[in-house]
Order: sequence, then structure tokens, then C-alpha cells
Amino acid sequence: MDAAALGAFLARDFPQVSGEFTVDSVAPMQAVIRLSPSDRHLRPGGTVSGPTLFALADLAIYLALLAIIGPEALAVTTNASIDFMRKPASGRDLLAEARLLKLGRVLAVGDVLIRSEGEAEPVARAALTYSIPPARQAGLG
Amino acid sequence: MDAAALGAFLARDFPQVSGEFTVDSVAPMQAVIRLSPSDRHLRPGGTVSGPTLFALADLAIYLALLAIIGPEALAVTTNASIDFMRKPASGRDLLAEARLLKLGRVLAVGDVLIRSEGEAEPVARAALTYSIPPARQAGLG
Amino acid sequence: MDAAALGAFLARDFPQVSGEFTVDSVAPMQAVIRLSPSDRHLRPGGTVSGPTLFALADLAIYLALLAIIGPEALAVTTNASIDFMRKPASGRDLLAEARLLKLGRVLAVGDVLIRSEGEAEPVARAALTYSIPPARQAGLG
Amino acid sequence: MDAAALGAFLARDFPQVSGEFTVDSVAPMQAVIRLSPSDRHLRPGGTVSGPTLFALADLAIYLALLAIIGPEALAVTTNASIDFMRKPASGRDLLAEARLLKLGRVLAVGDVLIRSEGEAEPVARAALTYSIPPARQAGLG
Repeated sequence: MDAAALGAFLARDFPQVSGEFTVDSVAPMQAVIRLSPSDRHLRPGGTVSGPTLFALADLAIYLALLAIIGPEALAVTTNASIDFMRKPASGRDLLAEARLLKLGRVLAVGDVLIRSEGEAEPVARAALTYSIPPARQAGLG
Repeated sequence: MDAAALGAFLARDFPQVSGEFTVDSVAPMQAVIRLSPSDRHLRPGGTVSGPTLFALADLAIYLALLAIIGPEALAVTTNASIDFMRKPASGRDLLAEARLLKLGRVLAVGDVLIRSEGEAEPVARAALTYSIPPARQAGLG
Repeated sequence: MDAAALGAFLARDFPQVSGEFTVDSVAPMQAVIRLSPSDRHLRPGGTVSGPTLFALADLAIYLALLAIIGPEALAVTTNASIDFMRKPASGRDLLAEARLLKLGRVLAVGDVLIRSEGEAEPVARAALTYSIPPARQAGLG
Repeated sequence: MDAAALGAFLARDFPQVSGEFTVDSVAPMQAVIRLSPSDRHLRPGGTVSGPTLFALADLAIYLALLAIIGPEALAVTTNASIDFMRKPASGRDLLAEARLLKLGRVLAVGDVLIRSEGEAEPVARAALTYSIPPARQAGLG
């Protein structure tokens, strides 16, 4: 799946978040996802909420995975760890750069850096593990 | 702060989530927070989304912390790890039981189990770390 | 497997650590493992090293798992998160209380609290995930 | 501190592990640490033990940090998350590439990829947080 196909998948299966989260680019084992924060993502003080950053990290790695194994695969997140390191720059989009580090028979692992657009220093980092269901495993065999 | 005071804090400072997340009980170093899932928390198949479970875990430990150090403290989440273990029972509230394991000068650490109401087996577990800002540290001194 | 059987397994398969790590007690989905720190576990200042605490947490959940699925299962650790919260009390044994939170077809998840013997406040907490190989999965079916 | 200075620090303050763990290279906010596994790092089947990989990841980020803030700083690990993804290649050294993602007043965060020398795919990834004590914080001010 390329960026357009992932975007169409997002619009169809995640109507609640599409329009906010968009696919910037996709490459083998990689994806860059963009979030344009709106009021409902913000906490007092203008920072982006932790659950929003978590959702962005989760989606970025998930889409990098689906780009390879296809959208019909019902991969589910089994584990996540995340470090919140800096407040995002005010009024900027957030970019999540995800890479898959392992794509195994039953588990996939990826990590992600989230930055405010145009900034070098990361806002957050995360690593997530996905469980790939048996039907898909067979397909991968 | 008792459960009523925490509930009032939630309604005032987190108007976007109050009404969904409610304070069931508070005790020293502990809190139980309830989520009544609505459509916007659900994924296809009826499961509660990962970001929603993350938000519930984060809020439960945060409120256990604020009950002790007070709502004016601007504690921020610095790290979280979470395991998603089972699909929640359909149509049930989720209960997050949080306990603080450390309340230090600059860092607080807690963990949480999330269960569907009436079920013994947990849906998710998480551990989170909060950084406590210097003004509050002075107050704790 | 009871505590004696797990101890015998430890002596046979982990000769490098048996004698240091001992099985205090085992119950369904639970295990308590003891470490009597020696010089090679200590860092300057008398604290127990992070890798030693990691090894203790890993072993405690692993043995709680093997007590149920049997020692021939080649379960491997796939993920771990750990918080180091307090310096251990000097000259005391460390006790790791592990509980299994999930024992699935392909994944098992547990968490653990490590305390200095006789102390209420934990030294560290950890959560670990184990992958259970297919041969064993069949056996569990 | 350059690679030679870090190596000397390692030999003096960590005599138990120096000789096994060596400093390959250091750059601003980065370090590459090498482990030549010996029998005591191995598990049945020839795989390197989890605690050994944890120790390697911890040391790599720690040395990247000390290279900047100096060896007298008593930084301590407060949190670690690690994914074990592949069995190391037999008979090869392991290389841990660490990068600091944040060096704040009280907390430093870094992540690391561990590979068998000459292999592209990682054996493990980890992220660790260190608490920097107040004396050093003053020095950083």
C-alpha cells in the first residue's frame, strides 16, 4: 500500500481520526504520519495531550505495518512504551517518523520519534509491539 | 482531596473527558477511576481503543497523585508502559485501579490494572512516571 | 511444578545463578524469588546493579510461568519495562513477588514488585512479556 | 570525554565488566559499545542472556551521557524498556548504538539498537531514563 492507499484506508476504517491524522509518506518498513492539533488535542497551557501523542505513535507504526501486510490484517497493539520529552512547539504540526524493526510470524515491533515540524529535537519517542493474527500468519507463510 | 474534590477538579480542568471518566474511590496512594465507554472510544469490533485505555490509566494514576500533592501541582507524565492483554467485555464499564509506588521529590511512579466491571482478569496493565515541578517540590520539602 | 521442582530446574538449567536466586514460594500464577546479593551484584555505594534487578524480575515471572506450562517450554522474554524506584536496604535479601496477569496461546504477561526483605516500599517494579513457542502452544491447546 | 577517557573510566569504576564491554566510538550525544560474549553471558542454545543485553543497553546510553556531563555525575537509571527481537548471530560481537534524545536538568533519555556485528537487523532495542542528581544539575546550570 502506498500513501494514497493508506490514506483511503484511514478515511474508511478510522473516520473519527482521519482529517486530523494524515499520511505524509510511506517507504518499506517506514511511515511518516502528520497530526495537525486542534483544540480537542490540547491540554491547559497549549501542550498536546499524552493520549493524543500515544494515538499518533500507535497509528504511525500500525500504518507502516499495514503497508506491508495489508489492511485486512487485524493486527492489535499488545505493548507500548513511550517517553514524553519536550512540549511541542505551539501552533505547529507534529510529525511521527515510524520504522519497523521486526516483522515476524506472530509479532511486529517498531519505534517512532515525534517532532514538531521544523524542529530537530523530539517531543516524544515510543516503541510498540503488535500481535498478528493467525489468518494473516498463514498468509505470510 | 477526596473523591468529590477530585471529581470537581476533573469537571473544571478536564471538561472534555469529565462525564466519561468518573472517580469511584480514593484512598491514600490509591484511586479507582471508571470509564463508561461511548461510541467514540470504540474500534471496529467493539473493542475500546488503545488511546482510550492509555488515557484511563494515565488519569487514574494522575488523580491518585493529585489527591496527595494537590491540584495546583503541574505534574506531567514523562514515561508510560502499557500491556494490552484482553478485549474488554462488551457493554461494561471499565475500572482502573491505580496505586502510587513512589512519591519522591521530583518523580512519582504508579501502576494500574484495568478490568471490565465484574471480571477478574485484567484488560490492561500500565505503569507511569510523573515529573513534579520545582514549585511543588519546595512545597513538599 | 512446586517450589522444590522449580529449585531443581534452576539448579540444573541455570547453574550460574542458582545458589544466588532461590525459590521462596509458588502458587497458581504467582511466585516469590529471593536474591541474596553478593559483591558481584553491587555497584559503588552498595546498591544492587540494574542488570541484577532485571535478572531477578525476569526470573521471578519466568518461574511463575514455568510452574504452569512446564520446564520443557522454551518461553523467551520479548519485552520488559522496569522502574528503579529506591536503593535497596543494605545487607538485606531482595524478594521479588511475581504474578502472571495473562497466560495466552502465544503470549504470557506478568508483573513483579521487588522489595528489600522486611521493607514495605518497593525497590523496583517490572512487567515482562514472554513468547511461548508453537510446540508448547499445541500442548496447551 | 572521548573514547579513551570513557574506557579508562570503565576500567576504574566498573572493573567487573571492563574487558567484556569496550568503547568503540563516542560522538556528541552518541556512543557505540561492544560486547564480546563469553560463556557466562550465554543461555542454553547459545543465545545471549536478557540481563546481559540489558546491561549492554544501559551501559551504552550511560556512557553517552557521561561523555557529556562527566564521570563524577552519579546519574542513576530510573526507567528502562526493552524489546528482545532476534537471537544474536553465533560467535559474533554485539554492537550497541546509543543516542541521547534528551539531556534535561533532572532527566536524560536515550535509546539504543543492539546488533550482531555485520548484521543489519537488530537483536534488541531499548530506551532508558536517567536521573541526574542535584549537585550535577547545579553544575549544568
